[in-house]
Amino acid sequence: MPEVTPALVKTLREKTNAGMMDCKRALDESEGDLTKAEEILRKKGIASAGKKASRAAKEGVVASYIHLQGKVGVLVEINCETDFVAKNENFREFVKDITLHIAASSPTYVSRDQVPEDVLASERDIFAAQVVGKPAPIVEKIVSGKIEKFYGAVCLLDQAFIKNPDLTIQDLVSSKIAELGENIVIRRFTRYQVGEE
Amino acid sequence: MPEVTPALVKTLREKTNAGMMDCKRALDESEGDLTKAEEILRKKGIASAGKKASRAAKEGVVASYIHLQGKVGVLVEINCETDFVAKNENFREFVKDITLHIAASSPTYVSRDQVPEDVLASERDIFAAQVVGKPAPIVEKIVSGKIEKFYGAVCLLDQAFIKNPDLTIQDLVSSKIAELGENIVIRRFTRYQVGEE
Repeated sequence: MPEVTPALVKTLREKTNAGMMDCKRALDESEGDLTKAEEILRKKGIASAGKKASRAAKEGVVASYIHLQGKVGVLVEINCETDFVAKNENFREFVKDITLHIAASSPTYVSRDQVPEDVLASERDIFAAQVVGKPAPIVEKIVSGKIEKFYGAVCLLDQAFIKNPDLTIQDLVSSKIAELGENIVIRRFTRYQVGEE
Repeated sequence: MPEVTPALVKTLREKTNAGMMDCKRALDESEGDLTKAEEILRKKGIASAGKKASRAAKEGVVASYIHLQGKVGVLVEINCETDFVAKNENFREFVKDITLHIAASSPTYVSRDQVPEDVLASERDIFAAQVVGKPAPIVEKIVSGKIEKFYGAVCLLDQAFIKNPDLTIQDLVSSKIAELGENIVIRRFTRYQVGEE
């Protein structure tokens, strides 16, 4: 088993922003393998992000982005737990990315639970009508798949991040929760386009 | 009757932005009195603004204002008739003033017709309860007065402009319609404050 040196711990800390003892333990567990230790931390990061996601997020920032000299505009409120994180450069960059993303991807809702029941039912009907005549289990599978795509089109958290389509916005939020050590909530947004109905 | 010189017409044009023939006519009517001619034009300006207010306003701009390093944010869409006016410096300044005003004065609605019936009825009940026992005509007068104040508190167009409380926002819009020669409509706005309910 290779030695877990302070230099190795330091390298891992710099790569992950995790605490010293967390890095030490991850390196012990991975037997000094840096890549594996990073994975362990990411998994723990996401796990603890899950816990943090229930903590109150009352601080934060309201930010805007104006596109095409004023043809499109976005306003967003993103919450965190402390004013300290609200002023953090990493947090501010994240907020800016979200405004850019909303301007480009034009979501309708923040999350799935905001999609009204009747909208969802009507989408489901349309999708079912497209695959009529097929066996029920296949219909159900196809419709479920199309509903997932629908969420990915209209819900901000389900959308692929424009700057890195391998991540959803939810993935991005989770990674920021892990990095910043606070619950982060995209609370609400407004997107106006000049002259739209 | 003093002569209406081209120099006088030019001065009036510079003061009012009105067309040359309009200035000539106003000066003829005021017998060369510059102040009176300006009043005549303002009256005509407001009158023609009334006509313009029914014309389609599909162009315009979306603008934002972020206050207190992101504790308050405003997004607004203001429409005009042409992209030419949408890019005009005077128009842009006006739009900026409206965003500042909304950040400071926190209206709930753009105009009176957006106040829901039940909200209005509930306000009316509260005001009537405050003056119970007085003769009906007096009650009606007091309640009407209080409703006017209520509109002035919650409707953007009825609010006193923060930079010049002698004007309502509606007055400001009307003067811009006269100056710019196009219908102008404050279509919608959103104001977010971090952590508000």
